[in-house]
Amino acid sequence: MPERVLIYSRFPKAQMERFGQRYELLNAAGKAPNEVFSSDQLADIRALITAGGTALRGDAMDMMPKLGAIVCYGTGYDGVDLAAAAKRKIAVGHSPGANAASVADIAVTLMLAATRRLLVADDYVRGGSWAAAKPSPMMRPQAGMLGRKIGVYGMGEIGRKIAARVAAFETEVGYFSRSRHDVPYQYFSSLDALAEWCSVLMIAVRAGADTNHAVDANILKKLGKDGYVVNISRGSVIDQPALIAALSDQTIAGAGLDVYAKEPHAPDALTALPNVVLSPHIGGHTLESHVAMQDCVLANLDAFFAGKPLPYTVPPG
Amino acid sequence: MPERVLIYSRFPKAQMERFGQRYELLNAAGKAPNEVFSSDQLADIRALITAGGTALRGDAMDMMPKLGAIVCYGTGYDGVDLAAAAKRKIAVGHSPGANAASVADIAVTLMLAATRRLLVADDYVRGGSWAAAKPSPMMRPQAGMLGRKIGVYGMGEIGRKIAARVAAFETEVGYFSRSRHDVPYQYFSSLDALAEWCSVLMIAVRAGADTNHAVDANILKKLGKDGYVVNISRGSVIDQPALIAALSDQTIAGAGLDVYAKEPHAPDALTALPNVVLSPHIGGHTLESHVAMQDCVLANLDAFFAGKPLPYTVPPG
Repeated sequence: MPERVLIYSRFPKAQMERFGQRYELLNAAGKAPNEVFSSDQLADIRALITAGGTALRGDAMDMMPKLGAIVCYGTGYDGVDLAAAAKRKIAVGHSPGANAASVADIAVTLMLAATRRLLVADDYVRGGSWAAAKPSPMMRPQAGMLGRKIGVYGMGEIGRKIAARVAAFETEVGYFSRSRHDVPYQYFSSLDALAEWCSVLMIAVRAGADTNHAVDANILKKLGKDGYVVNISRGSVIDQPALIAALSDQTIAGAGLDVYAKEPHAPDALTALPNVVLSPHIGGHTLESHVAMQDCVLANLDAFFAGKPLPYTVPPG
Repeated sequence: MPERVLIYSRFPKAQMERFGQRYELLNAAGKAPNEVFSSDQLADIRALITAGGTALRGDAMDMMPKLGAIVCYGTGYDGVDLAAAAKRKIAVGHSPGANAASVADIAVTLMLAATRRLLVADDYVRGGSWAAAKPSPMMRPQAGMLGRKIGVYGMGEIGRKIAARVAAFETEVGYFSRSRHDVPYQYFSSLDALAEWCSVLMIAVRAGADTNHAVDANILKKLGKDGYVVNISRGSVIDQPALIAALSDQTIAGAGLDVYAKEPHAPDALTALPNVVLSPHIGGHTLESHVAMQDCVLANLDAFFAGKPLPYTVPPG
């Protein structure tokens, strides 16, 4: 009989298909497991699959007394209470790097679309304004990438891939990270200094208590009126009301966002702005990165049920 | 007294400002010069500034009997009848490479936006579908860039810059060009072979009789149902009705276009499609590329009026 695995978060069916071929899945689909399943059903659950951003605390873990493995689908695990898991001797795994290329790609997509005002441009063609030679202040030439100073905040796998991509656009690349890395980019010892220097800030840092609202009104002010923010990490890294204010009063020029403070919600004050490009947390959302993430999830589950350590475990805090 | 220079095409005022500081400008603004100016006024015109894509034939040249220099603002010169100019001993100059980085950037912007369906994604967030968890077939995961085969058609300065940029996305890059170049990408000896191999075709070839409608129904069919076309060169390189048909019946997956058959017009059949990203010929449209193009125009004009050969002359056909 196949082992049972609980699906904790809400996932599209297609993403769980490979797991269902090997395990019996109990799909809580984002609800509290004890609202969907009886305590008898939960009693022998030893592993669950979750989206790293979904809150998963000790009280939920306690609904499954035999729980031994929390496997995050994706690279993030910021929603998981790691201390609570450690206390209960529950291993926590994720999919490191599996979606890094795909997420770095969306970061560059948002950067280019925001700085070149692609949405406005497409609308200018489709709406007939181009054919009518209608003047549009939004269509005035903007600074391009050549020689532009791009700041990368966080130099993990995604940050490195973002840096490599933007460097190919003949830009200058700088970064801030807790520690200096062996990379060919200028290191800044604080986020303040990086924001002061760069004109596009690419947020690629891991979410957590130490990075919560790290990009606040002060950082945005340093970025300045020609500056852009791109966030593909987690909404929590930006003080979202401060960002909306900075975009509205043109403290900065624009933003490209794949993540938000409270997903799947983007506030009306944000969606009403013409100088933002918004995507619905699709950074890791490519065919090949889903396959790679599923490979990691399966490797973690298979190892766990074979009594071995998880091959892709989250790093110690 | 400053020399007089005719402005042949229609340009935004800001783009001509630096020329006006050094020359007396007669602005025909896209009309036939003899409709705007008397033959007396045109009699002593020795140089004109034009957009390379604007048709400029012998009959227009003959309106200015002393015309000695045609200076194209931008890299293209496909609208200029070079044989007619040569016959009249008129030198033809352009701005080679001045906007190459900017144009290559828009090519990659269109590629990423089309393949990751950025416009659909932005609309999904803004329209509230994301918050409502509304199913959308257009939002299903697509193939990303990792390992993708990108074909570059044309390996001039822009083609090389496109290739360098897309290679940074961990893709495979191939190209077709009249001759093999010393570049680290796979060479294909025909456009057919390139289209058969790649899944994104980036058009960076110079417009001309030999490339007119080079990308036709046959090439699009070879590109196939997962294929994308990106064109930042000239609309004439694509058989536009064939492209619209291929996009409508999903012979190919999508397209990103900065140029069109008859600018500034994009047909309704094209603007109605959800699987295209359209921009209004803004490839060279950045602050730094305008400065670089103006530098070339001024260098050409200054040399001409000093009795010297143009420093940036178009290559022999």
